[in-house]
Amino acid sequence: MNDIEQVMQNAREAFDSYKNLSPAKRAGFLNEIAAAIEAAREQLVPVAHQESNLPLGRLNGELTRTTNQLKMFARLIEEGSWVEAAIDTADESRTPRKPDTRKMLMPVGPVVVFGASNFPFAFSTAGGDTASALAAGAPVIIKGHSSHAETSQIVFKAMQVAIQKAGVHPCTVQHVLGSGSTVGKALVEHPFTTAVGFTGSFHGGRSLWEYANQRETPIPVFAEMSSINPVVFLEDTLQKNAAALAKQYAGSITLGMGQFCTNPGLLIAVQSEGLDNFLSLLGAEFTRIDPDKMLNSNIHASYHAALDKALAQKGIEKVGQAEKNAGEGEAFPTVAKVKANIFLQNPHLSEEVFGPYSLAVCCDNKEELKTVIRQLKGQLTTTIMGTDADVEANGDVISLQVTLAGRIILNDVPTGVEVCASMVHGGPFPATTDGRFTSVGTTAIKRWVRPVCFQGFKDNMLPDALKNSNPLHIWRIVNNEWTQQSI
Amino acid sequence: MNDIEQVMQNAREAFDSYKNLSPAKRAGFLNEIAAAIEAAREQLVPVAHQESNLPLGRLNGELTRTTNQLKMFARLIEEGSWVEAAIDTADESRTPRKPDTRKMLMPVGPVVVFGASNFPFAFSTAGGDTASALAAGAPVIIKGHSSHAETSQIVFKAMQVAIQKAGVHPCTVQHVLGSGSTVGKALVEHPFTTAVGFTGSFHGGRSLWEYANQRETPIPVFAEMSSINPVVFLEDTLQKNAAALAKQYAGSITLGMGQFCTNPGLLIAVQSEGLDNFLSLLGAEFTRIDPDKMLNSNIHASYHAALDKALAQKGIEKVGQAEKNAGEGEAFPTVAKVKANIFLQNPHLSEEVFGPYSLAVCCDNKEELKTVIRQLKGQLTTTIMGTDADVEANGDVISLQVTLAGRIILNDVPTGVEVCASMVHGGPFPATTDGRFTSVGTTAIKRWVRPVCFQGFKDNMLPDALKNSNPLHIWRIVNNEWTQQSI
Repeated sequence: MNDIEQVMQNAREAFDSYKNLSPAKRAGFLNEIAAAIEAAREQLVPVAHQESNLPLGRLNGELTRTTNQLKMFARLIEEGSWVEAAIDTADESRTPRKPDTRKMLMPVGPVVVFGASNFPFAFSTAGGDTASALAAGAPVIIKGHSSHAETSQIVFKAMQVAIQKAGVHPCTVQHVLGSGSTVGKALVEHPFTTAVGFTGSFHGGRSLWEYANQRETPIPVFAEMSSINPVVFLEDTLQKNAAALAKQYAGSITLGMGQFCTNPGLLIAVQSEGLDNFLSLLGAEFTRIDPDKMLNSNIHASYHAALDKALAQKGIEKVGQAEKNAGEGEAFPTVAKVKANIFLQNPHLSEEVFGPYSLAVCCDNKEELKTVIRQLKGQLTTTIMGTDADVEANGDVISLQVTLAGRIILNDVPTGVEVCASMVHGGPFPATTDGRFTSVGTTAIKRWVRPVCFQGFKDNMLPDALKNSNPLHIWRIVNNEWTQQSI
Repeated sequence: MNDIEQVMQNAREAFDSYKNLSPAKRAGFLNEIAAAIEAAREQLVPVAHQESNLPLGRLNGELTRTTNQLKMFARLIEEGSWVEAAIDTADESRTPRKPDTRKMLMPVGPVVVFGASNFPFAFSTAGGDTASALAAGAPVIIKGHSSHAETSQIVFKAMQVAIQKAGVHPCTVQHVLGSGSTVGKALVEHPFTTAVGFTGSFHGGRSLWEYANQRETPIPVFAEMSSINPVVFLEDTLQKNAAALAKQYAGSITLGMGQFCTNPGLLIAVQSEGLDNFLSLLGAEFTRIDPDKMLNSNIHASYHAALDKALAQKGIEKVGQAEKNAGEGEAFPTVAKVKANIFLQNPHLSEEVFGPYSLAVCCDNKEELKTVIRQLKGQLTTTIMGTDADVEANGDVISLQVTLAGRIILNDVPTGVEVCASMVHGGPFPATTDGRFTSVGTTAIKRWVRPVCFQGFKDNMLPDALKNSNPLHIWRIVNNEWTQQSI
């Protein structure tokens, strides 16, 4: 039996045990993981810094976000209403007799999670995918990311401490390292795997999705892949707030050297004096931004190759670039512009350039701006920057934007993803492989479950969430009414 | 411009209008469709009878179910809480500032619905897929089923009357006829199509799913395909209730000449005297059941080819068959049995035989019974027949069954699908292409939507479901609390 086979046998055994744990016990386990990671902070942050080049402050913040996510999912399952319990009681007097039917969400089985290079804590080993899967009742097999392998192993050790303390099945979480195209592929293809979580490149996510669809029994892959997060700048705000906008967007485009899925890579506006002024101020801001190290040498090489390719396209004009030269492994922040008619004819220009780069698209008029939006592929976010007067006059533009992305932002930057119940970090293909779900926020748990209906079951045989007495005191739909009452 | 191109251009235009209708207006439209179909009942039922061979009584009942489904979705969207509104208000004092984020489900765009042969009303033109999509705010393109083309056209005419009366965009519903592999394929492949609903064969559903995945932008296909709905008969009930069980199951297996997705095609039990007695009584029941016409000549030919193939397998023994000979186009009700060790080695025996046929699998012991369940593929339903003592002693068997299907039934037959909030008519592949959804009941609406998050929007710009005043008076999650209150 090879390693992957053993891992997946273990995962199936763990599922048989873990799926039967009470929500309170699962919540306890998540809190233990949070505590164990917190306890390893002093060891974790410097290692992650060394492996990822990310600043210590950012990594400390990300670690806190990670433990907060775990605790958020613990609270969610302690509260319990997320299972979407629905109950229709029997009606013996009806012809034909109406049966008693009760439905809730239940875990699908073992889940494979691929760590992301750009968030060594929050989107990796014990990140949002893992936390939401464990909350749902699914055991997790983590494919650690090679660019922070040691960080991943320390986090996994902390999780093993939590496994011991919480007394859950020892294989509820497992950790493997290796290449995506061999180990990763084998994990996705194994018949015991029931779902996959991934954050990374379009190429990587799409490959996993294809492996999953070529199985005899296809499984869902939730891959968050590629987005250029278009921002529409409207006329009145460009005229009134150009300097503030330039400062705000120079910051957002180069935050973390642009290594965020929500990095604003496309700035769209109708040609005006205000726009010219904004772009020249934005260019000036860029000259003052220092190049900095990227996550790893692959990402650095990819950024500069993509940047060179982008800048070499016909009609592209540089707007601003860091004045200081880039050192070894450092990214060179750059902003450029192009006329919309050229942009519309060149599909290369709407490809993601992962790093501190953004392209301004200058449109002749509003119709052309709308054509640009219509031609874009699915996005994680899209943003509108505008005064009240702008917004009033551009309902049609905003309506188009709503069909484009998972999150629509007004007068803010897309970077910075709030972890909460109302967040959508997802969007139509190719932003993700499945725009019906989110990978951030409480509803991320919905990726690892499916509904099961129990018909004609006696009360004592039902899961607690569906029992007459409502022992978990959750919100349920009982005979079409929302209620926390017992039956 | 060819026909399909025109149809899809129309659908996109209709979407731009229809998605902006208030829930109350959409509900009014659904009720108008129900009324128009009711008004056409006298014309519809005889035509459907002639096209499908289904009895008039059944078709009258199915038409009522269809109008009830439309009215159920109207009530659902009038109530409005199905949109899963979640609101997290801003916190200006937090560092970094916490933005205002608000999420709800919104329609994806034009939906293609394939009519099913076995339910000319309830799963076809204005059936559950169409009703749920229209409720969600998605325009529908119906690919009418060739085996009841005239019925489909009359239903579509009724829908056009409703379009007029409700004043919705004339292309909110469109109707095309033609082959699945040409017209159907072209509809699924068109870039404006955003989702597909289908009920039918594994081959048909799987093909549509493949077309959808080969697109540049893949789209979801909700295909309800193939299920043999395994029923586990436990020892005590077989000993005590053999005669009643035989009568009940002979009825369920041959109901509508077995042409239901939930037809019990596999009966599993541990060898016992009670089982022998049950099977001999079941066989006797079958001798008294008259052959009857099937839906069409293709289905009839397929049934008899599949039946002949099944009966020709090694180790298969006939248990009972109708005494009366089958006439032209009529199905011959048949029940057979096989030992579990033979069943486990022959994958042909777990293939669906669409029609009035069921296979009993006789196991040497409980371990072998569990092996049989473990080897089965995903199912729409699975059933347990047992006394209290049986159920008490077989928690492990029931736990396995829960992982197998979308609906788990105790002491009833799987045929008969209640249309309600707690129904799951779905299940793991290959029962459907997506076991996370149901095609029957109110939550069927969730197939045609995706979540959208609005960040930093002013109250007057938000959809009604997300406004502070909660004008729709729906249940929402506001700062992690379930409430109907305003903010």
